[in-house]
Amino acid sequence: MTGAATNMRMKLPITCLILQIILIILFGTIVQYDDETDAKEWHEHLHNGSKDADNDFYYRYPSFQDVHVMIFIGFGFLMTFLQRYGFSSVGFNFLIAAFALQWATLMQGFFHGLHGGKIHIGVESMINADFCTGSVLISFGAVLGKTSPVQLLIMALFEVTLFAINEFILLTLLWAKDAGGSMTIHTFGAYFGLMVTRVLYRPNLEKSKHRNCSVYHSDLFAMIGTIYLWMFWPSFNSAITAHGDDQHRTAMNTYYSLAACTMSSYAFSSLTAHDGKLDMVHIQNAALAGGVAAGTAGEMMLTPFGSMIVGFLAGIISVLGYKYLSPILEEKLKIQDTCGVHNLHGMPGVLGAIVGAVTASLATPDVYGKGMEDVFPQIANGEFTASAQGARQAISLAVTLGMALLGGLLVGFILKLPMFGAPSDAICYEDSIYWEELSGEGGVIDKKITLVLEEDFV
Amino acid sequence: MTGAATNMRMKLPITCLILQIILIILFGTIVQYDDETDAKEWHEHLHNGSKDADNDFYYRYPSFQDVHVMIFIGFGFLMTFLQRYGFSSVGFNFLIAAFALQWATLMQGFFHGLHGGKIHIGVESMINADFCTGSVLISFGAVLGKTSPVQLLIMALFEVTLFAINEFILLTLLWAKDAGGSMTIHTFGAYFGLMVTRVLYRPNLEKSKHRNCSVYHSDLFAMIGTIYLWMFWPSFNSAITAHGDDQHRTAMNTYYSLAACTMSSYAFSSLTAHDGKLDMVHIQNAALAGGVAAGTAGEMMLTPFGSMIVGFLAGIISVLGYKYLSPILEEKLKIQDTCGVHNLHGMPGVLGAIVGAVTASLATPDVYGKGMEDVFPQIANGEFTASAQGARQAISLAVTLGMALLGGLLVGFILKLPMFGAPSDAICYEDSIYWEELSGEGGVIDKKITLVLEEDFV
Amino acid sequence: MTGAATNMRMKLPITCLILQIILIILFGTIVQYDDETDAKEWHEHLHNGSKDADNDFYYRYPSFQDVHVMIFIGFGFLMTFLQRYGFSSVGFNFLIAAFALQWATLMQGFFHGLHGGKIHIGVESMINADFCTGSVLISFGAVLGKTSPVQLLIMALFEVTLFAINEFILLTLLWAKDAGGSMTIHTFGAYFGLMVTRVLYRPNLEKSKHRNCSVYHSDLFAMIGTIYLWMFWPSFNSAITAHGDDQHRTAMNTYYSLAACTMSSYAFSSLTAHDGKLDMVHIQNAALAGGVAAGTAGEMMLTPFGSMIVGFLAGIISVLGYKYLSPILEEKLKIQDTCGVHNLHGMPGVLGAIVGAVTASLATPDVYGKGMEDVFPQIANGEFTASAQGARQAISLAVTLGMALLGGLLVGFILKLPMFGAPSDAICYEDSIYWEELSGEGGVIDKKITLVLEEDFV
Repeated sequence: MTGAATNMRMKLPITCLILQIILIILFGTIVQYDDETDAKEWHEHLHNGSKDADNDFYYRYPSFQDVHVMIFIGFGFLMTFLQRYGFSSVGFNFLIAAFALQWATLMQGFFHGLHGGKIHIGVESMINADFCTGSVLISFGAVLGKTSPVQLLIMALFEVTLFAINEFILLTLLWAKDAGGSMTIHTFGAYFGLMVTRVLYRPNLEKSKHRNCSVYHSDLFAMIGTIYLWMFWPSFNSAITAHGDDQHRTAMNTYYSLAACTMSSYAFSSLTAHDGKLDMVHIQNAALAGGVAAGTAGEMMLTPFGSMIVGFLAGIISVLGYKYLSPILEEKLKIQDTCGVHNLHGMPGVLGAIVGAVTASLATPDVYGKGMEDVFPQIANGEFTASAQGARQAISLAVTLGMALLGGLLVGFILKLPMFGAPSDAICYEDSIYWEELSGEGGVIDKKITLVLEEDFV
Repeated sequence: MTGAATNMRMKLPITCLILQIILIILFGTIVQYDDETDAKEWHEHLHNGSKDADNDFYYRYPSFQDVHVMIFIGFGFLMTFLQRYGFSSVGFNFLIAAFALQWATLMQGFFHGLHGGKIHIGVESMINADFCTGSVLISFGAVLGKTSPVQLLIMALFEVTLFAINEFILLTLLWAKDAGGSMTIHTFGAYFGLMVTRVLYRPNLEKSKHRNCSVYHSDLFAMIGTIYLWMFWPSFNSAITAHGDDQHRTAMNTYYSLAACTMSSYAFSSLTAHDGKLDMVHIQNAALAGGVAAGTAGEMMLTPFGSMIVGFLAGIISVLGYKYLSPILEEKLKIQDTCGVHNLHGMPGVLGAIVGAVTASLATPDVYGKGMEDVFPQIANGEFTASAQGARQAISLAVTLGMALLGGLLVGFILKLPMFGAPSDAICYEDSIYWEELSGEGGVIDKKITLVLEEDFV
Repeated sequence: MTGAATNMRMKLPITCLILQIILIILFGTIVQYDDETDAKEWHEHLHNGSKDADNDFYYRYPSFQDVHVMIFIGFGFLMTFLQRYGFSSVGFNFLIAAFALQWATLMQGFFHGLHGGKIHIGVESMINADFCTGSVLISFGAVLGKTSPVQLLIMALFEVTLFAINEFILLTLLWAKDAGGSMTIHTFGAYFGLMVTRVLYRPNLEKSKHRNCSVYHSDLFAMIGTIYLWMFWPSFNSAITAHGDDQHRTAMNTYYSLAACTMSSYAFSSLTAHDGKLDMVHIQNAALAGGVAAGTAGEMMLTPFGSMIVGFLAGIISVLGYKYLSPILEEKLKIQDTCGVHNLHGMPGVLGAIVGAVTASLATPDVYGKGMEDVFPQIANGEFTASAQGARQAISLAVTLGMALLGGLLVGFILKLPMFGAPSDAICYEDSIYWEELSGEGGVIDKKITLVLEEDFV
């Protein structure tokens, strides 16, 4: 059942062990506690008048844990909708996230600035590492069911690196604002993944089509992922904004954007079905687009009103994307996007970037007051005008799209190397090639599950 | 399979879109950031000596997120116990909650007092909106499986409005205390829902009886809801109490009330079964009654001892209600209460209100010290005696019951209008009338699921 | 189907009610709010210059809730992997945890020191009670499927007591450090449970072997438990460390230990399978060993580098234990360890204790600065040398192992008393002896579930 190509006996252990040993060596060489996690340094701060309550842990750790849940439960379970790919969805999500967050600590630390040749880490770097990991998991959604875990680890290795470069260009060189990552996380992750899946195009994928669908309980598992992503998105977007009003406002804007998005997703899901029935794919995904689209402007003075409009549009775009655009992308552009990340992260991410550029260009001291220093420090200190900030936001979107598409192209070709053990077209979306048979007495229990279905009313 | 009446093609999209557009217009007109979410206002506070750490976000946002999980995961998954109604349970819960929290922001904001004609919002209003939403979801439990999503949205529209009025009467006119909502949330939501389901009585519901039951894994999904509700109830009851000892004490009282309630629920579930076996319905529901019953008195000096007695009784009442009272209510009073909300929210809510009245009437300066100002400001400033506070608590219960029953009666008749598309008696508790067929190859996978069962030992 | 021995009709209710009534009486007699939950006392603190923000609630409650999720969702769902024991796994976990946390409040309160003859409680005691409960749930994992709920409650009664004594010896008499409980929680719980299951050895357990295995969706439910444990372990280990850098550092060390552990677990799971396939048992369990192993040294200046090495080794040890050691323990030592707690909690706990002893013995003022007072107060004030602290850590491990093994021996024999209603060897791992039949029309739905499986490609 499992061909030589997909046998992971040597490939996967060697990849994991080499990557992890390199990580350990690099952490040992260049990573240090920051001032807030180091016993000696923090106590010098205390000596100089800080209090334990000022430690950033208390401002950010609850948000970090919410983000962490989104990464591991949210993304992991959202992808369990496939009937026979639940183990791999949760399990590979777990594996590549555990790798990516370590590698992201190094890459982001390197670009965010060294301290005497060392990377300093604390809760904020942990959140940023989880964010970067989220981007990789978005790309995973595009190739879900069609790649081996080794391919995924290699993809994560490159994608994290490119993510950190893109983030550096946007936030440090261009001084763009993108607290919730509409550009850095969602747009980047989606278009990177779409390009990878384009390069890995499988002409005979219809051989596995019967497994590229859900069953009743797999859809319920997926709803666990959806609901956690939805609930904690306010924490995601506000996790690394400035303290005080900024975190508070960002969370609230996101909350209303998501609520409005849910309403429009349900409306359009029903409206676009010939019999008015709701489609689980839309509910599981499109209802989240409001969080993506509030990722850039959420920390700005977008107002709840503006947030709701953004969410409302994001939900509509996302449902229409699933319904009408995805089939075209697959047929015409040969983009086989398993989870429809273009509809959940791609288009809503671009929308979020545009909303951010517009909102930034409208920033006035009258609205922001002294709070301008937190949200747009360069406008506050007179370095830029608001229009210039808006322009930089728009340029950032273009840079991100370029980096994602080029990066995805490059990495797609790397992943085509046969040594990474891609499954053949006929055994995609299938757990049993990577996971031990289910144990138990008797042959039948050892095999894959099918739910026997009946029809008892008409 | 789906008759014209239940076809949601136009009804649902139009309802969602109209409601959401009205919400957006109203938010644009009358809603503003409060002082803690507005960039300019908050920075003026900072200028006047506040610190970012004083922002209410840091006191309440972790509690808010716990409440949010209860609303969307807790209530949503608790109702997935039905074998064929999991999509609707989680999905309609999601939809009506997304609507209700927006509408509640407006209704509660209106009654809590305008600021220059505007509603000011922040984390506390978000918690209150989630609380109000909880009440609607309790009513949803009573009618679960028997109403269309359009009916549910209409119910939410009216119920939120009446909730806000009742809350205003209790908290502002009567100066009652009800931090965890034994009265405002649970009693109101339960009796409102019971009256609605009474008005919507279905004489031929036994035609759908074979679907009004659980299967093995649907009960496990429901346990996700139960456990999350149970774990986070301390956060629920303490989310909007005063800062400091009040939040701390309320959480702890609730924790012990729930623990004791779990013990008595297991005891009575086993005791009332002829063969001593536990009933999943009791465990999923009655074990939570301790949280409901600690909703009013939890912030008071109830003591852990008192909390445990309250929880202990609540568990007993709730199991006995499921076992003996619910069948009577259905047969004699024609109240078809799908989730048994009378046993989980109704009776325990009334118990909680009574405990609150008694505890309030026993409040003394000796016990509360200066903390009296937080818990009972009117007693502290000499406006009321403790007995008067107790009397006002009792009156509040009566008002709540009256508002709930009358409101439910009114709304029940509104929901009977045929245009809202109620399902017929023979297709209640059935996802397939509202949700797209499961996709996949071959006819059988397209249909509903049945689990084939076997018996392999005796 | 259910014999007299396993009929819980009287045994379970009586046990629950007696235990709960005793708890209520003891709480009424000797438990009081502490200074931070008592209205009067806290307001005197406020009067003397404290602020509400200084209340320990704001430092610890978010961590408490994460720990709470680990106890009820994490442990509960981790054990749902068994195909027919999901109700009991979650349900008995719920019951014994609800009991144990109350009993632990009393036992730990007694040993941690009375205040005028009273136990003072607040959020820190709630965390400690949850910790102690965790230890009982680890032991539950060893006997899962083979004990009645009455046996489990009796086990909890004794184990909590012994836990509190052991904790008192370690933390108060020996001044050992063990914030995340590698010794007090994991080593103690595991070896206690292993000894209990040894004493309760069932020679004919192979009669139930066909139920001692998972099915597809039961493994997905178990992954919910795994992922929650994994995500929140940083909160677990940091929940009761000193404020400031200590909580921050402990959380971060644990985060990196877990990430490295996940990588080595996947590597070794694949490496030790003849066809390179991953084993769900390893992923569900071994990937968590990094949290266990960072339990003692996590609060020390272990560095992320050191944490990753510890996690890396823990994952390897744990997988190898599941693969090679567990079968030997079962065959040679007659230890039937259902969940393999020796591999997840036992060996990684011992590793964590050793790492803690070594790290402590290497503590220098140069590294810790003034922070030494928080981590090793006795070293800071010159009472011990670092080596002495290390020695005390090592002695603590030995004491813990001794207490666990002797305690487990004693309690195992108590649990053999026939009145506690153990199931016979042929009906282990079976929900239907404790839970009401699933309701529904038609005979088949009333019976146990089997998933019919098919094989549709080769």
